[in-house]
Amino acid sequence: MSDAAAISRFPVPALADLPDDVRERIQQVQDKAGFVPNVFLVLAHRPDEFRAFFAYHDALMLKDGNLTKAEREMIVVATSGANDCLYCVVAHGAILRIYEKNPFIADQVAVNHRRADLTPRRRAMLDFALKVSLRASELDDADYAALRVHGFTDEDAWDIAAIAAFFAMSNRLANMTSMRPNDEFYPMGRTPRPAKPQ
Amino acid sequence: MSDAAAISRFPVPALADLPDDVRERIQQVQDKAGFVPNVFLVLAHRPDEFRAFFAYHDALMLKDGNLTKAEREMIVVATSGANDCLYCVVAHGAILRIYEKNPFIADQVAVNHRRADLTPRRRAMLDFALKVSLRASELDDADYAALRVHGFTDEDAWDIAAIAAFFAMSNRLANMTSMRPNDEFYPMGRTPRPAKPQ
Amino acid sequence: MSDAAAISRFPVPALADLPDDVRERIQQVQDKAGFVPNVFLVLAHRPDEFRAFFAYHDALMLKDGNLTKAEREMIVVATSGANDCLYCVVAHGAILRIYEKNPFIADQVAVNHRRADLTPRRRAMLDFALKVSLRASELDDADYAALRVHGFTDEDAWDIAAIAAFFAMSNRLANMTSMRPNDEFYPMGRTPRPAKPQ
Amino acid sequence: MSDAAAISRFPVPALADLPDDVRERIQQVQDKAGFVPNVFLVLAHRPDEFRAFFAYHDALMLKDGNLTKAEREMIVVATSGANDCLYCVVAHGAILRIYEKNPFIADQVAVNHRRADLTPRRRAMLDFALKVSLRASELDDADYAALRVHGFTDEDAWDIAAIAAFFAMSNRLANMTSMRPNDEFYPMGRTPRPAKPQ
Amino acid sequence: MSDAAAISRFPVPALADLPDDVRERIQQVQDKAGFVPNVFLVLAHRPDEFRAFFAYHDALMLKDGNLTKAEREMIVVATSGANDCLYCVVAHGAILRIYEKNPFIADQVAVNHRRADLTPRRRAMLDFALKVSLRASELDDADYAALRVHGFTDEDAWDIAAIAAFFAMSNRLANMTSMRPNDEFYPMGRTPRPAKPQ
Amino acid sequence: MSDAAAISRFPVPALADLPDDVRERIQQVQDKAGFVPNVFLVLAHRPDEFRAFFAYHDALMLKDGNLTKAEREMIVVATSGANDCLYCVVAHGAILRIYEKNPFIADQVAVNHRRADLTPRRRAMLDFALKVSLRASELDDADYAALRVHGFTDEDAWDIAAIAAFFAMSNRLANMTSMRPNDEFYPMGRTPRPAKPQ
Repeated sequence: MSDAAAISRFPVPALADLPDDVRERIQQVQDKAGFVPNVFLVLAHRPDEFRAFFAYHDALMLKDGNLTKAEREMIVVATSGANDCLYCVVAHGAILRIYEKNPFIADQVAVNHRRADLTPRRRAMLDFALKVSLRASELDDADYAALRVHGFTDEDAWDIAAIAAFFAMSNRLANMTSMRPNDEFYPMGRTPRPAKPQ
Repeated sequence: MSDAAAISRFPVPALADLPDDVRERIQQVQDKAGFVPNVFLVLAHRPDEFRAFFAYHDALMLKDGNLTKAEREMIVVATSGANDCLYCVVAHGAILRIYEKNPFIADQVAVNHRRADLTPRRRAMLDFALKVSLRASELDDADYAALRVHGFTDEDAWDIAAIAAFFAMSNRLANMTSMRPNDEFYPMGRTPRPAKPQ
Repeated sequence: MSDAAAISRFPVPALADLPDDVRERIQQVQDKAGFVPNVFLVLAHRPDEFRAFFAYHDALMLKDGNLTKAEREMIVVATSGANDCLYCVVAHGAILRIYEKNPFIADQVAVNHRRADLTPRRRAMLDFALKVSLRASELDDADYAALRVHGFTDEDAWDIAAIAAFFAMSNRLANMTSMRPNDEFYPMGRTPRPAKPQ
Repeated sequence: MSDAAAISRFPVPALADLPDDVRERIQQVQDKAGFVPNVFLVLAHRPDEFRAFFAYHDALMLKDGNLTKAEREMIVVATSGANDCLYCVVAHGAILRIYEKNPFIADQVAVNHRRADLTPRRRAMLDFALKVSLRASELDDADYAALRVHGFTDEDAWDIAAIAAFFAMSNRLANMTSMRPNDEFYPMGRTPRPAKPQ
Repeated sequence: MSDAAAISRFPVPALADLPDDVRERIQQVQDKAGFVPNVFLVLAHRPDEFRAFFAYHDALMLKDGNLTKAEREMIVVATSGANDCLYCVVAHGAILRIYEKNPFIADQVAVNHRRADLTPRRRAMLDFALKVSLRASELDDADYAALRVHGFTDEDAWDIAAIAAFFAMSNRLANMTSMRPNDEFYPMGRTPRPAKPQ
Repeated sequence: MSDAAAISRFPVPALADLPDDVRERIQQVQDKAGFVPNVFLVLAHRPDEFRAFFAYHDALMLKDGNLTKAEREMIVVATSGANDCLYCVVAHGAILRIYEKNPFIADQVAVNHRRADLTPRRRAMLDFALKVSLRASELDDADYAALRVHGFTDEDAWDIAAIAAFFAMSNRLANMTSMRPNDEFYPMGRTPRPAKPQ
């Protein structure tokens, strides 16, 4: 059943019909991951938007900075859970489990970050991210001060907020297209045991 | 880290200190499942409440009726997701995957039942369950009529609503005690592939 | 009009058709109260659920502990008001007025506990109960600390939360069945004047 | 306790210190009702606002039109319940019971109008009133059409909406002043039995 | 298009058909402003309500007190923005720009007072006004204390709250009648530059 | 005061310090508009994010398609109003007034699109956009069907949703940075009268 289901409410282009740069990006992901995450195929229906989306994604998720890659994925999973976005919770939950080498963390953060195994610093990071996602108009000096208590700089605050904001967009695109998570994501990273506190 | 974490904000009794009937119930679960789900240990802090809780649980989840066991667990997972209850999503998600022989269904239903692989009948069942969970004061004739369109009787409506109501309680107890899901639940039922449409 | 109205959306069994233990429990209530509160008749449609419901109710409402019986009923009335549950507000409001010997307290607590004649300790108790009822996923250490300021122990916190959680279920069952309050409840306990501050 | 409590967070003027017209209005109410409802004393702190408030109240509640006096009070009680306004629920609940000669109707409408003993016409009237009170910005042609189905004219719609709007103000004034309901209101109209369907 | 649009969902009386006092009040506004704001024409459909509405308006907006006229209009614009009331935002936004001699302030306050150019005192004033408008049932001592920090007396608190409450009514009347702002309001007060900090 | 205020909570780079492509883009805007909208300066603090942001913006706002440029700006203004984003309401409101040659439309759409001068087609467009912005997880077949009634294709639906999603991100970035609208935007497009119905 699952294999037969559509991955998008919209047409999904054949790879052969895509512009070279889009097809090459998809080929690279395929080579690295062993499969093509559906977000690439779904957004390829609009090549210009595809290019901008992934350029933005990479600018936020691959850049240098104080946030670890796992922390960036935590922000994605927590805010996507709050926005009821199936694709983002499942796909980024898989990545989070792998980066964090922790088979439990994605479910914890997606369902309720207050009940997750988190340091106070990471709890504060997600509190801020969720405020950006859900009540950004109420952001105020006190929210930035609460981050500084845990050693986050204002540049870190931008990073956290920008990731939460980008996935506010991404969650809406996934819900709008009824984007389907690849079957491959569900079991990823679920077997290794956590080796150390995070 | 995960193993060392407390499973409850409240004291957890030693099995030896429990009343016989409570200990025996726990022993039975241990024998059947191979481990003791934490809800048994956490609620054993209050034996009278333990007895009533599981008597109620069994009356709703083990009774005869038109709802399959998997469908009952779907109601639990969907409403627990809406209530941000980590323990219930993880523990009952595992049971749902096993009953349904579908490694994807629990995450789908917990995050957003509108994006899950569901028949229209099951979609209507969860729409009703979520209204009971989130806006029961607004229930009206139209909600029962919407179930009947899909062949649900009024007795089925009671079953759906009673399960949603019981887990409205259970979700609050789990959040109040900071009940921790057992590590064992996370990977359960994730490997088999679905054999047929549900 | 009121007499003719149905007390439940579901069939209400004749006493003669009930299992002995259920009929006896109902008979005891009749003997004590002079009438049968409709919750007994409505839930008797499902004897197993009836038994578990009242066993749970008694475990929470009749147990020893630091909360007075009136305080337990206050929690019921405040949370049932927040959940727009007519049966529970009217029936438990009557009991609260009698226990507290105060004809005003039930309406005050049902409509807005912030405007009720309450000691700061009871105000804190209801603040906690309402958070369990309405936003349990956000419960945190600070909520338990706020109770301790007023002398509540963690066991008291469990009591408050468990009552709020049980009536989260009960409110949903009453709304699901369109459970009708008995006419007898409305005027109960409205005449005596309060004798002392509560 | 109740007698000693303040009726307002703000100073309450002595009758002797009030302008003649304000004092006379209060005297008339005293003569008619046998006591002075606290809203008169609380608002007398601001005589100009007192005059405008009661002029507006009378223009809406005493005017001719298709709505009965009981129906106008129903709108007040239902919307005040939704706004958690203790003074308005208790004071206007008393008046509603008397006008309607029904000791149950005020509690029903204040807690959940969907569970009240109402004709479909009155149910539609309160649905509209509550939308004005809670989501007026979303009012649309369909809301007026839903009233017409039950024989309400557009002038009736204005009446319903204007009462809901006036008590949106009144509820906020009562909550802002911590206006205390007179003890006299609580038992009023609770003894007579309803004589006929409403 | 704009000129042809109806200014109310209800009949708008001809000036000649109005009672003398209502017509005179409208004439005075016409003489002073150069046009008749539509709220006068729309409410003139109900002369008694017209009289009470404007008497109340004047008692709150023209009275002496510590709040400047601009500050009173700020309260109107901020709360009307929160209530999505087109007429009140546009009409009172124009008046606010003129009183404050600031072409930016109305848009800032209507969209998000947290991002407006406001002194901390005015920010606190609007925080209080918005709580009255949106969550009056939760008002508590702490809200009055927060005003006192900025030098507001309890009488000032009443003024702020009463204006917020009056426009809670007014916003609902405007949305109920689909009251259309006059074209004249939109450009008013937009050209002068602010001369000094407010 | 206004001129002196910071345009961002974060450092704003000098043009001379920017990468050539970023500076050139800013120079082009300056040449065309006569001033530099602050969003360019605020986001230039992060050149990679700047590039992706404007590439995405252009892909959505400058592309061919059935939506007019004015309609795209309407979507921006309506959703930004719902998200309380000052920068986006003021800046895009100016652009909307100019494109639409209508000095009223931006305020109407920002405050309450249900009270705006809109064709039923545009009303449906904004209903859909606001659902994407505020409740995307609830999107369903019925929402796409409602668009088709007014002649919108599924590609148009993508356009509407993608713009709403992009500004869900943009609104959060603006609120996170406390992005200040340029003074120039406020009066733009307010003088011309509308020439024809839109």
